[in-house]
Amino acid sequence: MFDFDGVLTDNRVLVNDDGREAAWCSRSDGLGLAALRHIGVPTLILSTETNPIVAHRARKLQTECIHGCDDKWTMLSNLLHTRSIDPATVAYVGNDINDLECLRHVGVPMCVADAYEPVKKLARLVTARPGGYGAVREICDLIVESRRSVRKSAEL
Amino acid sequence: MFDFDGVLTDNRVLVNDDGREAAWCSRSDGLGLAALRHIGVPTLILSTETNPIVAHRARKLQTECIHGCDDKWTMLSNLLHTRSIDPATVAYVGNDINDLECLRHVGVPMCVADAYEPVKKLARLVTARPGGYGAVREICDLIVESRRSVRKSAEL
Amino acid sequence: MFDFDGVLTDNRVLVNDDGREAAWCSRSDGLGLAALRHIGVPTLILSTETNPIVAHRARKLQTECIHGCDDKWTMLSNLLHTRSIDPATVAYVGNDINDLECLRHVGVPMCVADAYEPVKKLARLVTARPGGYGAVREICDLIVESRRSVRKSAEL
Amino acid sequence: MFDFDGVLTDNRVLVNDDGREAAWCSRSDGLGLAALRHIGVPTLILSTETNPIVAHRARKLQTECIHGCDDKWTMLSNLLHTRSIDPATVAYVGNDINDLECLRHVGVPMCVADAYEPVKKLARLVTARPGGYGAVREICDLIVESRRSVRKSAEL
Repeated sequence: MFDFDGVLTDNRVLVNDDGREAAWCSRSDGLGLAALRHIGVPTLILSTETNPIVAHRARKLQTECIHGCDDKWTMLSNLLHTRSIDPATVAYVGNDINDLECLRHVGVPMCVADAYEPVKKLARLVTARPGGYGAVREICDLIVESRRSVRKSAEL
Repeated sequence: MFDFDGVLTDNRVLVNDDGREAAWCSRSDGLGLAALRHIGVPTLILSTETNPIVAHRARKLQTECIHGCDDKWTMLSNLLHTRSIDPATVAYVGNDINDLECLRHVGVPMCVADAYEPVKKLARLVTARPGGYGAVREICDLIVESRRSVRKSAEL
Repeated sequence: MFDFDGVLTDNRVLVNDDGREAAWCSRSDGLGLAALRHIGVPTLILSTETNPIVAHRARKLQTECIHGCDDKWTMLSNLLHTRSIDPATVAYVGNDINDLECLRHVGVPMCVADAYEPVKKLARLVTARPGGYGAVREICDLIVESRRSVRKSAEL
Repeated sequence: MFDFDGVLTDNRVLVNDDGREAAWCSRSDGLGLAALRHIGVPTLILSTETNPIVAHRARKLQTECIHGCDDKWTMLSNLLHTRSIDPATVAYVGNDINDLECLRHVGVPMCVADAYEPVKKLARLVTARPGGYGAVREICDLIVESRRSVRKSAEL
């Protein structure tokens, strides 16, 4: 599970003089998420903002996406319940205080290098790269690599 | 009171080939201003530029906004007078020479990390983060935290 | 031969709220490619993304361009075969894992300063500048300079 | 006289998927140019690119602008001749090799912090800030300050 702003973006928003918005994403994150999809790990983007940017980006990344939820943890816990997924098996990557509840409840709380302090304190893993500059790719590579190691061990 | 360009943005402007403009803002500033609103601290964005960008951003941040004023201090002093607000109780955050008059007259002059030297000299607080990269969030967090401390002391 | 995203750009993509995309390129790369064209060195941009951005940029740079190819090496080897070009005489500049096959097969594998590790390991030359900030210019200058040295030596 | 790309911008260009372009400029440069105008120093922006971006920016900055000239020095020397201006009295700020001829011929050659080496070698002054991040403002402040010093000396 990934927060959008500050995790898949650098937390900045381009405000146009007609009121439209845009955000920077990283092509390298796209290659990482494709690798996760390839080995069958389901992913989800969860955003507080009611914002078509996250929907467009998720479609391109072929990733499920929920946006426009004021309370992320309520949304996420309902979703996990519906799908009978144990939160203890979920990894969540956040960057700011509206991610705290989710990070407290999942099994693998993670955050980006430039996350806010209270978020870093909860995270079991802090990426080396900041959000929007390959932090998501870093996590995808880690998961792909660990799955490969597990598979290798199983084969021995 | 916040200047817009260089405080809520990184002081850069995107110029499109059709003459339209855009500017980068930080999502983290948005969370900080929401926290200020939550504890009832009124905020205002004050910009020299006659620019719909600042109006769009202020609406999204649910913050009052005055833009297109050549002389910020005249505008600000009139506003404070009309509302019977003592300038000594006002905090102003600026970054450049067109903020100097305002900073001289308010009780709590502040500026961003990358402000110009004459501005820094007047400021009682210089943020650790540059404008557009969470400087406003930093100030919001400070105010929220200090209000909480004051309330706690009052309760003792 | 140049990869586009991460080589001629900084590997980031601007996602607008209407789903349109944009990418940052460097004017300095443009001057470098013009110098290569001037001395008669053919260039090609090769991109996995099916994306009008790369087509627009290539037209402006007056460079040939192939985009929307899932397997870059298959595409490139076919092209070289059709034109009777020996891969050993080709220089390829990449940044990420979808460039690995091309880099393994060409005579002069190169990458940008911020390329991913497996790419750097294959590269005979790593530029000092990152992609989108003059890495391509650096390579163009190198080629122009080496041609000049060769010509001078021949004249002696 | 100012080059545009790399001097009033950070030398990058945003390429949209509809082929339109955009560039980043600095609000701080705008305040500097306004101060120059205030003390009566004429300014000109000179750009190789045939590009409406530079025209839009120049109009906003209330600065004269010539763009779409392949050979900048021919253009500039003609202009200076027509207006009976001695090149020795002209300051020119550049960043790349297409500025070299102009820099060789004017009295005060200058360049930005991130200019290319051959340009730096010709410049009598290299700004501390890179292009698009206040380099022009720095030069404007210098000129305004030196005029003030001259006026003060004359008054003594």
